[in-house]
Amino acid sequence: MSPPSARTRVKRLAELARYDAATLHAIVDASYLCHIAFHDGSSSHCIPTACWRDGERLYVHGSNGGRLVKLLGSGRQVSVAITLMDGLVLAKSAFNHSMNYRSAVIYGSFEAVAGEAEKRRLMDVFMHKIAPGREHDARPGNDKEFAATTLLALPLNEAAAKVRTGGPQDDAEDLDLPVWAGVLPLLLQPQAPVAAPHSTVPAPAYVTGWHGRSPLPR
Amino acid sequence: MSPPSARTRVKRLAELARYDAATLHAIVDASYLCHIAFHDGSSSHCIPTACWRDGERLYVHGSNGGRLVKLLGSGRQVSVAITLMDGLVLAKSAFNHSMNYRSAVIYGSFEAVAGEAEKRRLMDVFMHKIAPGREHDARPGNDKEFAATTLLALPLNEAAAKVRTGGPQDDAEDLDLPVWAGVLPLLLQPQAPVAAPHSTVPAPAYVTGWHGRSPLPR
Repeated sequence: MSPPSARTRVKRLAELARYDAATLHAIVDASYLCHIAFHDGSSSHCIPTACWRDGERLYVHGSNGGRLVKLLGSGRQVSVAITLMDGLVLAKSAFNHSMNYRSAVIYGSFEAVAGEAEKRRLMDVFMHKIAPGREHDARPGNDKEFAATTLLALPLNEAAAKVRTGGPQDDAEDLDLPVWAGVLPLLLQPQAPVAAPHSTVPAPAYVTGWHGRSPLPR
Repeated sequence: MSPPSARTRVKRLAELARYDAATLHAIVDASYLCHIAFHDGSSSHCIPTACWRDGERLYVHGSNGGRLVKLLGSGRQVSVAITLMDGLVLAKSAFNHSMNYRSAVIYGSFEAVAGEAEKRRLMDVFMHKIAPGREHDARPGNDKEFAATTLLALPLNEAAAKVRTGGPQDDAEDLDLPVWAGVLPLLLQPQAPVAAPHSTVPAPAYVTGWHGRSPLPR
């Protein structure tokens, strides 16, 4: 597939580029957060925030009074990156060391989500990503809470992904050096849940099943 | 401590802000990568790349011909963010759900590192972060490789960190709801090393000790 625009064409290690929707969606779905780059007229900013996907859009949310909503709700151009670290790649030469990762960069501008029903539906999608079923257990947002929250949507149509997998690529003259070479994999893994003091009911399945599993699809 | 500049003052949840060097250094040291935001005159970009710290500077590196070096080596203003996900925070109300994280945002401009001896020293610092001892095992960069590589340094003096830890903060009227509340922790964990087919020597300590340990100081 081709890149959707000039600025999404991967130039460095272009053979690692992926422009298909399935790869892009999988990366967004596997990450709890994104980094949003934008310029406010005097400075560039890089802001981390939670994100999720519904269909062909990436969503973030924030307090109406917050900087994110004030600066991004007005159609400002942004670049959003999501990066998942999968491992360190140790080659026989220092120069050929690398990392395995899945990354996505999306260009465009956010637009505020209109309509309380749609906001409620999208927040349920977000809760379901955090913990499937949680959207039925937690006390839903009330009118005041929803009125104080802005959801922002970014179309996924101008995006590129880059994925590196596998072992080190050593130069021919280094292949026989007596140096260990391979991959040191990394995985963001769920640890034992910690109940709050005011939690007085049995843990639901998404809590008891948390520890040790891979939290999001890879 | 106070923020070093107006643009590093944390506004949203300001009580989570940290402006001390020790917190900042620990976050940089615990992450393998950062996201760099910059504006090239027509678009904002958000670029993930590997990073490391030496003293009071953050370092990244790239190929001389690459976009990162071409666009950032000339003193362009940037914002660099590092974010570590530590867990999902489940409150009794949907609205009070949160995440535990450690994040840092640094403002300034990169400057290319001059001098081959200094470049070699700094790449050893990077290799040591990736795998302590690796800087003695891998075939060192030769003159051609170092000539093709630019190291970029960003001072850490204009930065802010933000750290959330602990359990959910529920509203008083939600405290007795029959809903599980607590933290689902996350940790980037080393998995079993995978040797490359051309790796013919025993694994060194930083490989045999990789699996199951926390890779970087928390």
